[in-house]
Amino acid sequence: MQKDAKFVKEIADMKEDFPQWYTDVILKTELVDYGPVKGTMVIRPYGYEIWEHIRDELDRRFKATGHKNAYFPMFIPLSYLMKEAEHVEGFAPEVALVTHVGNTELEEKLVVRPTSETIICDMYSKWVQSYRDLPLLINQWANVVRWEKTTRPFLRTSEFLWQEGHTLHSTEEEAREETLRMLEVYREFMQNVLAIEVLTGKKTEKEKFAGAVDTYTMEAMMLDGKSLQSGTSHYLGKNFASAFEIKYLDRDGKLKNPYQTSWGVSTRLIGALIMAHGDQRGLKLPPRVAPVQTVVIPVAQHKEGVIEKARELADALRKAGVRVEVDERDQSVGWKFNEWEMKGAPLRIEIGPRDIENGVCVFSRRDTHEKGTIALADVAEKVPALLDDIHETMYRQSADFLHSHIVTCHNMAEFNVALDKQCFVKAMWCGCRECEDAIKAETAASARALPFDQTPVGDTCVYCGKPAKHTVVFAKSY
Amino acid sequence: MQKDAKFVKEIADMKEDFPQWYTDVILKTELVDYGPVKGTMVIRPYGYEIWEHIRDELDRRFKATGHKNAYFPMFIPLSYLMKEAEHVEGFAPEVALVTHVGNTELEEKLVVRPTSETIICDMYSKWVQSYRDLPLLINQWANVVRWEKTTRPFLRTSEFLWQEGHTLHSTEEEAREETLRMLEVYREFMQNVLAIEVLTGKKTEKEKFAGAVDTYTMEAMMLDGKSLQSGTSHYLGKNFASAFEIKYLDRDGKLKNPYQTSWGVSTRLIGALIMAHGDQRGLKLPPRVAPVQTVVIPVAQHKEGVIEKARELADALRKAGVRVEVDERDQSVGWKFNEWEMKGAPLRIEIGPRDIENGVCVFSRRDTHEKGTIALADVAEKVPALLDDIHETMYRQSADFLHSHIVTCHNMAEFNVALDKQCFVKAMWCGCRECEDAIKAETAASARALPFDQTPVGDTCVYCGKPAKHTVVFAKSY
Repeated sequence: MQKDAKFVKEIADMKEDFPQWYTDVILKTELVDYGPVKGTMVIRPYGYEIWEHIRDELDRRFKATGHKNAYFPMFIPLSYLMKEAEHVEGFAPEVALVTHVGNTELEEKLVVRPTSETIICDMYSKWVQSYRDLPLLINQWANVVRWEKTTRPFLRTSEFLWQEGHTLHSTEEEAREETLRMLEVYREFMQNVLAIEVLTGKKTEKEKFAGAVDTYTMEAMMLDGKSLQSGTSHYLGKNFASAFEIKYLDRDGKLKNPYQTSWGVSTRLIGALIMAHGDQRGLKLPPRVAPVQTVVIPVAQHKEGVIEKARELADALRKAGVRVEVDERDQSVGWKFNEWEMKGAPLRIEIGPRDIENGVCVFSRRDTHEKGTIALADVAEKVPALLDDIHETMYRQSADFLHSHIVTCHNMAEFNVALDKQCFVKAMWCGCRECEDAIKAETAASARALPFDQTPVGDTCVYCGKPAKHTVVFAKSY
Repeated sequence: MQKDAKFVKEIADMKEDFPQWYTDVILKTELVDYGPVKGTMVIRPYGYEIWEHIRDELDRRFKATGHKNAYFPMFIPLSYLMKEAEHVEGFAPEVALVTHVGNTELEEKLVVRPTSETIICDMYSKWVQSYRDLPLLINQWANVVRWEKTTRPFLRTSEFLWQEGHTLHSTEEEAREETLRMLEVYREFMQNVLAIEVLTGKKTEKEKFAGAVDTYTMEAMMLDGKSLQSGTSHYLGKNFASAFEIKYLDRDGKLKNPYQTSWGVSTRLIGALIMAHGDQRGLKLPPRVAPVQTVVIPVAQHKEGVIEKARELADALRKAGVRVEVDERDQSVGWKFNEWEMKGAPLRIEIGPRDIENGVCVFSRRDTHEKGTIALADVAEKVPALLDDIHETMYRQSADFLHSHIVTCHNMAEFNVALDKQCFVKAMWCGCRECEDAIKAETAASARALPFDQTPVGDTCVYCGKPAKHTVVFAKSY
């Protein structure tokens, strides 16, 4: 599609209207479009390729930690959802129901999975008989449906893509280890693939998954100071296993319920990387998931030998494992620079007649705007190193941003000032639901996590002033 | 799960009851299980890994031919399905309908996609404006739902996984080329990955896709002589493009509808490889999609150094790119042999104390039962070559089987004899629907394809005796 260089200027000012900036960026870069049914999204090729890289990177990590993939049906009998009391309360209002096939009414209504604990537990109850069948370590890549009132592409949509791990273990200790192991897999992935620093910890009772004993979370800070819950890992205890009568014969000859975990991340991660890294010019994609890691732009491409040299350069990079594209479109060089800045390609390489004479090309980094030249003979070695450096620089920036925007607060006056400055708030909490609810009602900030480091930052609850029990990070969130 | 060696004997006789043999094999090898909702299946890890290899192999081919992946919503407004007349007639009776979210009735009923032409065309009508936007070459990997009365895991299930390519072109010629290019991608994949010979050709009007101008098919012969439609590629003309008002401004300044194709294969391919290659002992997996290409079985594994040597051997194979597993379970060697024959591992390697002394291991091929020894120093070189040879042998066997089971028939007496002998029938046809319907009603065989090679095998229609127009392959089918 032909585009106008002015498009870049049409992106809303991110300081003035961050939500509009987000919408402008995702639509103009063709990551996504709105589907015809309210709250649905179409993930366009440029967005879907980011998801493919996220999926492949995570899948490799899941397999390396002993998990295998499987696929469970999307339609769950409504009665299954009812079996775990907290679970049905959490999900029933937002489930899509299939009631008819053609003109025929179904005997039992079917839920389109909002998550798959119930149907997976039903199958596990058939598959697991002996302690030899444990641990059972299965993951699923699938679409799920949760009907939300307020939707935004990637962040909250009626249908989204995700993975959900579901494991069974013979001891509580082993299940709790698995819960934390997978949270760590996620954290390491965020750091080393998406170049995003996250805050990890435990959810409060109010914020935990419907049906879990404990929910652990990783929270990422978006550039507007809001938190994005980017992945969760749940210790489910025996809640589902007993509701679904999963039993195994243990070594001691006794029938027991196993201990369970589940954990997931979704296409929401694409929203996370846009809002953690972008700038006024558009996307700034972390190199390890960028569909085009390096764009090669021929300068004076009508001149003899330029296109050929650009293609040769791209071939050399491709052989070195770089995802590269030569932009040969009939547009000005300036137009292409703007276009690829907006689309967030981590590295741009220009090559024109004079460069060819000098045996070099010119690079320009999307992250720091640093420019330089590389000898053509060195590109296959230098470009991968540059991409690694871009990754490291982006991650350090994300880490600095997060850590410099967490403010310790001892009372609600400080709390409100910190929120106004688009910061996370670290504060003490008495542990009672009333204070948590009141803070949410008055400030719109919720308890994001009880960080693993529970070093107290005071003695009294930031809200009621009574003796404090927990160190909590509060923030506004997506 | 602990299993009994007798399991192998519990597989039904494939010559006496092929459908029961199929069911026994897929359940006992843990490829699949029945879901709680009628007609649904759970693809278990051993089956899902086969699908992962199929997906990766195909995806690489789609990308090499210029296609990109995207994801479109699963919920389609019911009104969309109505826009293309033949399409709605074909799919309306079997679509699952979402009517409610929680307790709230939706304003418009939503169809769970049986295929995505309609929603994709709606998006394409927004995206395509100029001839510069063509060709548009997009593929989607997704789940789809078609409510079928008679279901069987992998072959016909309410929900299944598939890929669907949807492309737009500025000329009919280019769209027809794409239709045949993708059929050829499928054929080459069947041959070089699944080791299955297929018959390719065009569908009759009766058998074509609802909404297509022409449907091309590849048909594989199962061991019971029935045909399994394994993939289709459709030339859609302007049928959907005009119904959905997809228009582009051509070079000549005129607004035009583009020409369209769609093409797909599904988890049905797993059914195809089971029924094309299996035997009385169970699965016989083609090496290029087998989850375990080589199983290493330690003999006298309690003896010092045996397990270690088996693991060392497996590591060497893994480094050579072989998917390998060491079966260290506390079971007898005989039990393991039976188990892995049933599960269809293409190559088995045994290694015991005497082998270690002699610096060799013993291999046994699943396809030919040929046995031999390999020097331990040579395994990394010899095993990949053996796996390639197993592939070639399996493919030649499939090709011989198909070509030796196609019988030319000149009248219905010959036709019935050929069907009784579990063969495909090659015969002439006048081209009228009445004869096609009558043949189906009397013999249960349908016109599978008009093969690309239309060399006549006679002058008159096999059914009515009037002048013949087409050479057709008829068969019973899944």
